[in-house]
Amino acid sequence: MSDTCRIIALGGLGEVGKNMTAYECEGSIVVVDAGLAFPRDEHLGVDLVLPDFGYLRDRADSIQAVVLTHGHEDHVGSLPYLMRDVPIPEVWATRLTLGLIKSKLDEHGLLRAAELREIHPDDPPRELGPFRISFVRMAHSIPDAVAIVLETPAGRIVHTGDYKLDHTPVDGLKTDVGRLAELGNLGVDLLLGDSTNAERPGFTQSERIVGEAFRQIFPLRQGRILVSSFASNVHRMQQAVDVAVELGRKVCIVGRSMRKNANIARNLGYMEIPEGVLVRPPELDELDPSEQLILCTGSQGEPLSALTRIAYNDHPAIHVERGDTVIISAKPVPGNELRVHDTINQLAKTGAEVLHQEIAPVHVSGHACAEELRTLLSLLRPRAVMPVHGEFRMLAAHAQLAREAGVPAGAIVLAENGTVVELSADGVRVVGEVETGMAFVDGLGVGDVHDVALRDRRRLSEDGVLIVVATVAGSNGGSAGPTELIARGFGDGSGPLLEELRDEANRVLEGCLREDITEIKLLQEHLHDELGQLVYDRTHRRPMILPVVVEV
Amino acid sequence: MSDTCRIIALGGLGEVGKNMTAYECEGSIVVVDAGLAFPRDEHLGVDLVLPDFGYLRDRADSIQAVVLTHGHEDHVGSLPYLMRDVPIPEVWATRLTLGLIKSKLDEHGLLRAAELREIHPDDPPRELGPFRISFVRMAHSIPDAVAIVLETPAGRIVHTGDYKLDHTPVDGLKTDVGRLAELGNLGVDLLLGDSTNAERPGFTQSERIVGEAFRQIFPLRQGRILVSSFASNVHRMQQAVDVAVELGRKVCIVGRSMRKNANIARNLGYMEIPEGVLVRPPELDELDPSEQLILCTGSQGEPLSALTRIAYNDHPAIHVERGDTVIISAKPVPGNELRVHDTINQLAKTGAEVLHQEIAPVHVSGHACAEELRTLLSLLRPRAVMPVHGEFRMLAAHAQLAREAGVPAGAIVLAENGTVVELSADGVRVVGEVETGMAFVDGLGVGDVHDVALRDRRRLSEDGVLIVVATVAGSNGGSAGPTELIARGFGDGSGPLLEELRDEANRVLEGCLREDITEIKLLQEHLHDELGQLVYDRTHRRPMILPVVVEV
Repeated sequence: MSDTCRIIALGGLGEVGKNMTAYECEGSIVVVDAGLAFPRDEHLGVDLVLPDFGYLRDRADSIQAVVLTHGHEDHVGSLPYLMRDVPIPEVWATRLTLGLIKSKLDEHGLLRAAELREIHPDDPPRELGPFRISFVRMAHSIPDAVAIVLETPAGRIVHTGDYKLDHTPVDGLKTDVGRLAELGNLGVDLLLGDSTNAERPGFTQSERIVGEAFRQIFPLRQGRILVSSFASNVHRMQQAVDVAVELGRKVCIVGRSMRKNANIARNLGYMEIPEGVLVRPPELDELDPSEQLILCTGSQGEPLSALTRIAYNDHPAIHVERGDTVIISAKPVPGNELRVHDTINQLAKTGAEVLHQEIAPVHVSGHACAEELRTLLSLLRPRAVMPVHGEFRMLAAHAQLAREAGVPAGAIVLAENGTVVELSADGVRVVGEVETGMAFVDGLGVGDVHDVALRDRRRLSEDGVLIVVATVAGSNGGSAGPTELIARGFGDGSGPLLEELRDEANRVLEGCLREDITEIKLLQEHLHDELGQLVYDRTHRRPMILPVVVEV
Repeated sequence: MSDTCRIIALGGLGEVGKNMTAYECEGSIVVVDAGLAFPRDEHLGVDLVLPDFGYLRDRADSIQAVVLTHGHEDHVGSLPYLMRDVPIPEVWATRLTLGLIKSKLDEHGLLRAAELREIHPDDPPRELGPFRISFVRMAHSIPDAVAIVLETPAGRIVHTGDYKLDHTPVDGLKTDVGRLAELGNLGVDLLLGDSTNAERPGFTQSERIVGEAFRQIFPLRQGRILVSSFASNVHRMQQAVDVAVELGRKVCIVGRSMRKNANIARNLGYMEIPEGVLVRPPELDELDPSEQLILCTGSQGEPLSALTRIAYNDHPAIHVERGDTVIISAKPVPGNELRVHDTINQLAKTGAEVLHQEIAPVHVSGHACAEELRTLLSLLRPRAVMPVHGEFRMLAAHAQLAREAGVPAGAIVLAENGTVVELSADGVRVVGEVETGMAFVDGLGVGDVHDVALRDRRRLSEDGVLIVVATVAGSNGGSAGPTELIARGFGDGSGPLLEELRDEANRVLEGCLREDITEIKLLQEHLHDELGQLVYDRTHRRPMILPVVVEV
């Protein structure tokens, strides 16, 4: 069949994070988004998680462009790593998204590595190989988000990116339901839609709700007010600034990423702070607490972030005290709950009042809930649906909503990363699978953390390590020199157990040598197994045992 | 002052878990509860966390009894460890609590180590040294919970234990508000109250709500129904069983702790399962899925639990498939969210419907929310309040509620573990501090995980370990034999970096020997520092570097 389009998610299915989808048609590939994910507990020592770029690397010549839906890390964060690995001719994005990635590419020395093209929802469709591409304005928790419409020889595809149907967004730029309805009337053959909140009933509240909460909270406070949110949540910051300005408070932005993003947003006209309102941290000393609004990073309890340092009284310029109010205007990403609770407890100990999303309306989600997904399905009336952006339970809930909206079960694809989905005049079907996976960024290296290293780190982290250094005489095979034991992360590093293990090691060695076992590998194996057993018998732990036999 | 009572929390303040409070009066000590906590991420390789028993050990002769409020692990779990460490003459508890701890003490061979005395809320007060002790029935997420009333020469103290004001509990045994009001009329000098939900506005819903949800969900289902909850939530199990019996489903209980608890509860009359309803896992094969209710452990996503094994299709007797319904009737304890999400996703992949507390009313809390705490404060009208059971933010919220209820700020004690609080005719005041802390259970050992071991494990877990084995000739100090490097959890264990490090190690050694540095300690220091720097330069990681220099 010639008029087909293949859709392959390289990330973002069965997970929240590292969203990346390849659209392939007549030998041309368009990549939508290039996100990253943050490591989970079991990714010990890993800093970032990237999609595996192997599929794109093998088809580098086919890639026409990377098209970005919005500037969040889980949609743009792996772009520099992708560009270091695979030549990308063009990157398309809206104005703010482009501003954010330019700063990122600059840090990686990649500013000139691809042509950066600014796109706008009002632009007429652009040709890109066999694709005609246009955009629909969508509301989200960062300005300038778009859905992408790909007209392909196989049919019309709408890829929503992240969105919600906020009818009163802070910038007035609503999700363009008119254009979505128009697309529905023209006919949508396949919808790839954000599933993050598909399990949640009802509607997500407007971002404006948070501004109203600020408007209720701020005037009653006499002390400092701190607001911590995601560094990219430009509208959240804007709303806090607006209320502060009305009340005559000065604004100080603290935390590298938030300062950077605020600068970019201000320069591009996405954020307005009147002249004279912004102050630098050292200037806070000259202001009464009642004249301060501090916007800061750290809403996820990140160890080195501004709010965490403030909470532990470890910030050079800012401290909080009784009478101050700290607003954590974000929800903990799953896995960060304990860290955020620690920060709240630490702040509460200073006597400050801490308001967070569990007890006050100081946060709303950026993602559409079930009724909004139903609305989108009604507007677009897609012939087929492929839920994207979410853990499996979310994708499954989105699929259920599509079924309830009248999409036939056979036209709903619950794909995984790597599933090859083909759209043709006959509809959608799964035609194969490609290899996908994760690449880890660890220190300076990309992809240098191997599974075995992670497994070792896990084992080391649970039970520690016991190193046994023994010397044997080379020629006659007699034991020579005392055995040395080093324990780390295991017991207290000394004591009777180590004595016993040392004796046992000597016994094992002597036993081996008596039986003429002199080969180093065999000696190590005996030491490993017999000491391992003794340690387990005594402690029920299994430290990693590393025997080193030195022939002298 | 002679008529004083000292109150010292040895656990449970500034944390959720390991609740334990000592009441000391005229040289006699009564200990209320002996709980444990579960390890946090940073407690690598730790199985359980106990209170530090040091304070009690030093005053063992004064201890009259341990009195237990209810049978949850965070209130009774450290009792066997305490009894192994400190002689405890008597343990007082209600019938079910006693049943649960008996089984625990039996496992530790401690069944005869203390006199076990069954108490009942209707009992007249009992004398215990200078204390007169009585009990008030409280509703909670385990049957047979009580508050403890301690009449002391310094005044009347009420210690609530965990509770909520459930007016329609499953067993009909409500929180005894009449008795609480009576105590309020007699005069309460100090209240120690559960703070877990103090931040949450409103009322906690009745346990019966969950039964109603079961009653709505079960009849619509054709496939298997699985309900996973805490193993001690007897009423949750009872409600599921009741609906199953009405619908003609058989019940299978899976998971060691749940089977054990259900047995104890049935034997003591706290749970009723009609004859012929209970089946064993192998018998499920003979039943249609529509005839099965499976109650199982694993609501926290614990790695080896029944539900986790079922989700990963790794259970010998039970598997789930499309058409089945899995109800996770619990809320993830903070820190367990990702594991629970994994389980839900894995179950969703089988095609089963998964209902959990985020999307269906299949769980209610066991702890009183703000309006209930206000109600308790109104009933008891305590002269002084010491919030207990909770993180600092929860204690602070409870303190705020007490202030709003009219308790003077000076009569509210925000104590930490170890704070010595004294009650006298003059009210409460902080008079000192004793040493408290955590003891870790790790394998077979108690308290054998030292801070330094945890620090080492943390470091090993993040960056791995690099072991450098070098040999030097003893007498002439010349280098001898090749240097050996072993990397674990660091890089891929081979490759050019290890080559470079080996060369560097040889260079360092030769350099040292040239400068007549031959002392082993010094050689190790040089190797450690210079290889560490090289590794950091190349990788920006800091593996633990363990140089071993063997003199031959």
